[in-house]
Amino acid sequence: VNLPRGFLASGVRSGIRKKFPDLALIVAPGGADAAALFTRNRFPAAPVVLSRASLARSRGRVRGAVVNAGCANAITGAEGIAAARRVREKASRVMGCPPDEVFLASTGVIGVTLPDAKVRAALPAAMARLSASGLEGASRAILTTDTGPKVASAVFSAGGRRGKIVGFAKGAGMIHPDMATMLAFLMTDVAATPSYLKGALRDAADASFHAISVDGDTSTNDTVLLLASGRGGGQRLAAPGDGPEFRVALAKVCRTLAEMIVRDGEGATRVMAIDVRGARSAREAKLAAHAVATSPLVKTALAGGDPNWGRILAAVGRSGARFSPRRVALSAGGLPLVANGCPTAYREADAARIFARDTVPVTIDLGAGGASASLMTCDLGHDYVSLNADYRS
Amino acid sequence: VNLPRGFLASGVRSGIRKKFPDLALIVAPGGADAAALFTRNRFPAAPVVLSRASLARSRGRVRGAVVNAGCANAITGAEGIAAARRVREKASRVMGCPPDEVFLASTGVIGVTLPDAKVRAALPAAMARLSASGLEGASRAILTTDTGPKVASAVFSAGGRRGKIVGFAKGAGMIHPDMATMLAFLMTDVAATPSYLKGALRDAADASFHAISVDGDTSTNDTVLLLASGRGGGQRLAAPGDGPEFRVALAKVCRTLAEMIVRDGEGATRVMAIDVRGARSAREAKLAAHAVATSPLVKTALAGGDPNWGRILAAVGRSGARFSPRRVALSAGGLPLVANGCPTAYREADAARIFARDTVPVTIDLGAGGASASLMTCDLGHDYVSLNADYRS
Repeated sequence: VNLPRGFLASGVRSGIRKKFPDLALIVAPGGADAAALFTRNRFPAAPVVLSRASLARSRGRVRGAVVNAGCANAITGAEGIAAARRVREKASRVMGCPPDEVFLASTGVIGVTLPDAKVRAALPAAMARLSASGLEGASRAILTTDTGPKVASAVFSAGGRRGKIVGFAKGAGMIHPDMATMLAFLMTDVAATPSYLKGALRDAADASFHAISVDGDTSTNDTVLLLASGRGGGQRLAAPGDGPEFRVALAKVCRTLAEMIVRDGEGATRVMAIDVRGARSAREAKLAAHAVATSPLVKTALAGGDPNWGRILAAVGRSGARFSPRRVALSAGGLPLVANGCPTAYREADAARIFARDTVPVTIDLGAGGASASLMTCDLGHDYVSLNADYRS
Repeated sequence: VNLPRGFLASGVRSGIRKKFPDLALIVAPGGADAAALFTRNRFPAAPVVLSRASLARSRGRVRGAVVNAGCANAITGAEGIAAARRVREKASRVMGCPPDEVFLASTGVIGVTLPDAKVRAALPAAMARLSASGLEGASRAILTTDTGPKVASAVFSAGGRRGKIVGFAKGAGMIHPDMATMLAFLMTDVAATPSYLKGALRDAADASFHAISVDGDTSTNDTVLLLASGRGGGQRLAAPGDGPEFRVALAKVCRTLAEMIVRDGEGATRVMAIDVRGARSAREAKLAAHAVATSPLVKTALAGGDPNWGRILAAVGRSGARFSPRRVALSAGGLPLVANGCPTAYREADAARIFARDTVPVTIDLGAGGASASLMTCDLGHDYVSLNADYRS
């Protein structure tokens, strides 16, 4: 996959991680309009603190992004901020732009200050390697416990011109719908104002990055960045109703990346697509879906391919959503398992076949109203425990 | 441990579980005053529905309790209620009391109707085995994935008389502070009114069964029953200030049982005692403690003995509690790891030693107020996954 017009990228080794590429660069030589979503965690990492402020000061202009893996630079106090600032300074010099047009993101271990000297030393090499086909390298350089790169793209027409959008992401652990939920970088050649981009990105994230859960934890570093080079020409998208095809393409790329993230959840072998209907409100539908998506009992049963719907309804029952148990229905892959709050006469073998699939679709109808919510979660198996019991070692 | 005066118990095999005793009986031949706490799950099991109503109708009088393991009889609709009613009918005949003085509790798989014929057939044998030393048998007959029985006792003096309180419990999975959180049966020979018992039980549960978490899930069947035979004589405890020594003994027994439950959490090898201080409100202190206690990343790190405090603070950061990151402090076993929102210069080996203990005490000071909360959680290791990925098979 090539980058959209107006973007170059690269991925190199800076030495933060022992054996893997760990530094990605995205550069828009002509600059880009930008919008970003950041973690809502009350311990935002140093790059989140700096990038949020920079983006506000530059009024949504970004020349380039510097992304490192292996060190989150979160909960590192003034030292962490100073280290991130030094990276920003150096990057602004090599890119030839004001510091506020440099966007930073980090992922990795919390509580360790970024070894910024390593990053600064590697920046010239990363600049030298920039190319229109650098997506592959960049997408690999931001990974941590991911099993592989996550890239998606789509084309669209806006204002009579053909446009392209390309995104890459990392995920695996600490994925939960609360805010941006991981690192994702989206680039398009469309021309659009930062405020248009912000609205489009919010909508797309609600139906994608905010609708997946791996372990209920949100990171200190979650960031989604959308860059528009405007190199496609045509009228600049500005009003929310502009560029409907661009919005569709953006939503599609975000959904694809989000599904890649949940499927590559740490140790995941299977996903459950949870669909809650008939709730009294959207809030209660979400409460029910989240309770199911984060229940360790549901997630371990999913790992075992066990059609243990009792655990699913027990999670719904403690979620805070209001309903009458006698009106609740549950089906999996179209097979009704519970109707009117009672088990149906389904055959265990049929249910077992559905719960053994790569994607287990579960629909819960609370019979209490008209609101609904969807959420995708992955199973919790031995590999999750192995990965996380000794992640730092 | 012998039962308090006025109580007999037994445990037998009814055939619900293949190889283990699965039916426990508690009988107070002279009757007992009673108070109970039940699950707040919106899918209360049939025995919960019936026992709650019975206790209200009998105005807190109980002659005996019938407890089965192996089948939760939850989400079983009218059939499940009918099956539980038939057990209650039969038990009232063999105990010679009104049906409303029979208390029912069940634990096991959800969605399967109680095979009540097996329970009814076993009731005469269970009655015949009743004895003042039957606690051991009863405490074993209520277990599911527990690794062993959980029994605690204490003595006290109330109104110039010596009294005794004995309790037994089961737990292991689906333990979370939301309501009664598991099955626990408490018996005392003190004389007390049902409303006094209710108040004392609520207070004791808040600092014990409601302060532990294994996996954040609450069951459809959680029940705590407190029975007082009055056989110790003396003035009947009625006002909240009565019998302070009894209240202390009750709290102690509940705390001991709760700690046994969390230590025997499914697959648990280690517990974390979480102490949140300096919160703006008790509610926010609890939010922060719960976020830590239920974080799969924290619990897997605990399994690995990894002093990964970054995951602890990341969970605090997304909990909803309000604070300034720069004022946050975290210590483990008295060793400061974070002060003023920054890592201290602690030695990794010292931290590792603390996180390798059976009990890892973690104190988080939010520096935002005067409220606090305590919660005990266990680790999430491979045995939890193994137990839950194929619990039904």
